[in-house]
Amino acid sequence: MAAPTRRIIVLTEGHSDPITAKTGASVIRYCEQEVLAVLDSENTGKKALNILGAGPSIPVIASLDDATDADTLLIGTAPTGGRMPAPWHAVVREALQRGMNVISGLHEFLADDAELRALAEKNHATITDVRRNTEKNVAIGQPLGDDYLRIHTVGQDCSTGKMTVTIELDKALRQKGHNSKFLATGQTGIIVSGEGIPIDCVVADFVSGAAERLVLENKDHDILLIEGQGSLAHPMYSAVTLGLLHGCQPQGLILCYEVHRKTIGGVEGRKLRSLSELKVAYETVGRLVHPTQVIGVAMNGRRLTPEEAEVEKDRVREELGLPICDVCRDSADLVKAIENLRESLRS
Amino acid sequence: MAAPTRRIIVLTEGHSDPITAKTGASVIRYCEQEVLAVLDSENTGKKALNILGAGPSIPVIASLDDATDADTLLIGTAPTGGRMPAPWHAVVREALQRGMNVISGLHEFLADDAELRALAEKNHATITDVRRNTEKNVAIGQPLGDDYLRIHTVGQDCSTGKMTVTIELDKALRQKGHNSKFLATGQTGIIVSGEGIPIDCVVADFVSGAAERLVLENKDHDILLIEGQGSLAHPMYSAVTLGLLHGCQPQGLILCYEVHRKTIGGVEGRKLRSLSELKVAYETVGRLVHPTQVIGVAMNGRRLTPEEAEVEKDRVREELGLPICDVCRDSADLVKAIENLRESLRS
Repeated sequence: MAAPTRRIIVLTEGHSDPITAKTGASVIRYCEQEVLAVLDSENTGKKALNILGAGPSIPVIASLDDATDADTLLIGTAPTGGRMPAPWHAVVREALQRGMNVISGLHEFLADDAELRALAEKNHATITDVRRNTEKNVAIGQPLGDDYLRIHTVGQDCSTGKMTVTIELDKALRQKGHNSKFLATGQTGIIVSGEGIPIDCVVADFVSGAAERLVLENKDHDILLIEGQGSLAHPMYSAVTLGLLHGCQPQGLILCYEVHRKTIGGVEGRKLRSLSELKVAYETVGRLVHPTQVIGVAMNGRRLTPEEAEVEKDRVREELGLPICDVCRDSADLVKAIENLRESLRS
Repeated sequence: MAAPTRRIIVLTEGHSDPITAKTGASVIRYCEQEVLAVLDSENTGKKALNILGAGPSIPVIASLDDATDADTLLIGTAPTGGRMPAPWHAVVREALQRGMNVISGLHEFLADDAELRALAEKNHATITDVRRNTEKNVAIGQPLGDDYLRIHTVGQDCSTGKMTVTIELDKALRQKGHNSKFLATGQTGIIVSGEGIPIDCVVADFVSGAAERLVLENKDHDILLIEGQGSLAHPMYSAVTLGLLHGCQPQGLILCYEVHRKTIGGVEGRKLRSLSELKVAYETVGRLVHPTQVIGVAMNGRRLTPEEAEVEKDRVREELGLPICDVCRDSADLVKAIENLRESLRS
């Protein structure tokens, strides 16, 4: 989506699966033409598709020597707590020595490392810490009104595919001629779309203010698709989720979940709350600030056959009485739900 | 509560009312023996009690010259966004030139100002920015269990008196022989009690982790009273509120409100949500992480006569079916509710 000016190597060494390396996997999915290779010496010879679920023609390489055309090293993961795997420091140093730019979505800022900063300067390279931000404004907090539609993806858990759902719905709406826009709130969405706010590293008092600003700056669009973060039920990240929800004041919510997941991501043994319970919770707290409703469900069915996916969709339709899509296969019912909400708010 | 080693001048110049200057007013209320004077040239001759609602014997002075014994200047406000009124910079400079220590709860860190820092160094004074913190850990997120009781104050709005309620309930419980402790989560509570975490300036991803740490470090007490922040319904601050609620996993909530307030603090014209709606919302989202319930209501009845207070209490008892106290007058019913919850969790 951003202008294809980068020639990227995605670093996922030792962490090459679509969940752990979701930053890398998403950049491959949405900026495929910019990615030259994936660096993971344990998987050389394979294609990115085999280990990250995207990029059928992108090779996996063993070292920076295997793709000397590259001008950018992308840190492919954003682990809990946001620190970089220790062995990667050597790769980052080597990249900077070659004059490659480094892009990172970690909480740990690479540009704060004096050695790396000096290397970058010496070799005329840049270090971009996507999560660095200086948001320092509380929300205005006035009702945003219904002149433009705000659709927000919310999750049963973290890492359920909210960013993908948001991007795919925006694409589908634009294909139908709507004046819509994807608004990124996480490091991966920002790297993919070239703009946005890394909402989870904003100081808590300013989270809603940052989300509100993102929306207000884009209100010339008819429909805003605002990427959600975490989950209202996640014992680590719910502050981010609620600040974002209240800051962007969505009229419509899309509830995202991954089929067959049983426990909360990153918290051993903690059972997920049901979709019904989350629907009630999101609507109850969302409405404290702006009228809102869950208008559809986005299923991440990557582990299902098409037949299993249909069975699962029927189950959820029965449970919640809402349209449901697996947006990587088809998003028509959710697009319709968004169009219907827009109509009902106009009339 | 902290050891009385400071000789404080509270700076509230031009902002001397109990709400705007709640930091100053609370320090006077709970650390009265440490406060020499209030600095507000527009109100000289009065007592602190007349302008801030506490401190009947504390004089209001016009300049630092009027209390030369003082060794500490306390910034008495913590306004929206956390910046200091511009005219106060001269007072802070003068205090540092006299070798006085400066304590501030602003979001804007005074020690980041090179001129102030140099002045402090030159005059062997300290600048303490209470809100500065380096919390960088996500919550563990495991259930905290019922070995010790966690009581959390939550609000219909910001600035309803949650800190006061929390301190008063802790005092009352200790007077009855309970092994309880007040846990501060805001700048004022930290200045008063000498410890705690300024939760609203923690990066959003780490808010729950900070609250969880505060609780785990104090779990040797039977009852923890955890100061709440903001409100789940506040369009600026709800991220802080929920991160704190989920991080400390309280079994019992005390819902705090101020009688006669109609609109949300700091957001012009936005009507407050009802106590009933907030009770449902706090319980609904709280239970996503740990079983919890609102066990009582704390009324801030500072604008009421004792007779009016009784009428208001009857109204709320009728509406919510819960015990209610104005803790500055009497906290017996809430103490009983806490004891009852402790009993029921033990059996």
